Amino acid sequence: MSKMVGVETICKERINLSNKQPIGIFDSGVGGLTVFKEIKKLLPSENLIYFGDTARVPYGGKSAQIISNYSLQIAAFLQSLDVKLLVVACNSASALALPALKNNCNIPVIGVIEPGVRAAVNRSSTGPIGVIGTRATIFSQVYQKGINQLAPNLEVIARPCPLFVPIVEENLMNTEIAEKAVQMYLSEFKEARVSSLILACTHYPLLKDQFRKALSSEVEFIDSALETANEVKQLLENHKKLANPEHIGTSKFYVSDSVDNFKQIATTFLSNSISNNCFQHSWTNCE
Amino acid sequence: MSKMVGVETICKERINLSNKQPIGIFDSGVGGLTVFKEIKKLLPSENLIYFGDTARVPYGGKSAQIISNYSLQIAAFLQSLDVKLLVVACNSASALALPALKNNCNIPVIGVIEPGVRAAVNRSSTGPIGVIGTRATIFSQVYQKGINQLAPNLEVIARPCPLFVPIVEENLMNTEIAEKAVQMYLSEFKEARVSSLILACTHYPLLKDQFRKALSSEVEFIDSALETANEVKQLLENHKKLANPEHIGTSKFYVSDSVDNFKQIATTFLSNSISNNCFQHSWTNCE
Repeated sequence: MSKMVGVETICKERINLSNKQPIGIFDSGVGGLTVFKEIKKLLPSENLIYFGDTARVPYGGKSAQIISNYSLQIAAFLQSLDVKLLVVACNSASALALPALKNNCNIPVIGVIEPGVRAAVNRSSTGPIGVIGTRATIFSQVYQKGINQLAPNLEVIARPCPLFVPIVEENLMNTEIAEKAVQMYLSEFKEARVSSLILACTHYPLLKDQFRKALSSEVEFIDSALETANEVKQLLENHKKLANPEHIGTSKFYVSDSVDNFKQIATTFLSNSISNNCFQHSWTNCE
Repeated sequence: MSKMVGVETICKERINLSNKQPIGIFDSGVGGLTVFKEIKKLLPSENLIYFGDTARVPYGGKSAQIISNYSLQIAAFLQSLDVKLLVVACNSASALALPALKNNCNIPVIGVIEPGVRAAVNRSSTGPIGVIGTRATIFSQVYQKGINQLAPNLEVIARPCPLFVPIVEENLMNTEIAEKAVQMYLSEFKEARVSSLILACTHYPLLKDQFRKALSSEVEFIDSALETANEVKQLLENHKKLANPEHIGTSKFYVSDSVDNFKQIATTFLSNSISNNCFQHSWTNCE
């Protein structure tokens, strides 16, 4: 009997050492897959769980209170799956729910905004910084305030571009519609000669080619997805929570609406298809 | 004392005769306001209660199960406000939740689809009928099946146009973006020489000018909002439930997200502003 206990203890220690606990990543829908993809690329040994709130997508036009309520509900679900770290892969939720999430979670929480702000300030010593995102993100002023704290003298120009998300979700990135929408939204950034442009919505990296056409080649694009992945790696290293490098990381996807639509559009974001690792987790409404 | 009872009875009878019970109208967000507006115009004596599920908008890309769950929840709320009739002013919910609503409500329920189908069949003796709507509406095939039942020989061409809703909500109806999107989605209807086009989404009437530019002047547009208002009047007449014609009808608006955004965009739809008659009714989530 004492031998049995010994084996158990060793097993537990091994599990602990290899840090197989998954990283939880969430977004209002599919956009956060750009963050998922960068984390997967940088940390291929990590087990990843992605949650897309497809039954209530999008968040970008909704209120702070609603976005905060939804985010807390998702965080509780991911914590029940024993994630070691929570990545808020949604700019709207990072802008409006991060303090509430940090207060309510007993694991580290990383949003996409701080990494983007830091990268923009580091690389934009001269000109104004441009910020584009959803209405919720831009009106929250988190990017404007964040940049102002780090570099009070840098001018910031921010505007919401609500049509970009549906254009990406409809896979219309290479159409005249996308071109016209980009011209409409980005003209003021061109006139102001911004030195960098923060893509403050996880969908926007998929429109990079159109942005490049509309702006001078010197404008640097700050892609929060990439910056966030770097921050995730750094944090896990600091906490000695990285997975065993020999381990081949797994991926699991949960969505609040049916999995079929999600699987289809996820292909656009991930450049490969999701097979049997996608599940529906429905919310229960009391009323 | 007996005199008092007599007065009470008379009062009750009067209330009954004048049918002050409100009509309940709901949509996933603001689109159903086109239906609200037509009902208000046709039946100015009726008290109207509108519910917009702005915390979970849009429904058009979501699954049948989710749309059905949300619709039943809203119907229960409106019934708690003692509505005499429920108008499903949302094509996606009419397409996917009408049977469930009829089974679960003890008041008459009217959707926007049957009125549109009937009008289209009556006015399209010759050519094919075109149908445009959200993904949920078009893939449900309710319009195709409805037309086929009434006129089996009429050809139906249907396609989803997911970009129209955000274009309307962003008030971009008169831009080149709208023009390009309309050209993209309607080209096949032009080639097929449809005799009528059903605007199977409550947002679409606001794009009528663009549709007219893209199609021959002979194509008739079937506006479900108008047809549904006529059906509401007919049903209330048949049930002897019309309000007293001397009564000036009131309007009340409930939304599941904050009222501010709703008030702003409602102005586009109603051509006048909503003041103090708009309230938030939040859903409670158990998880």
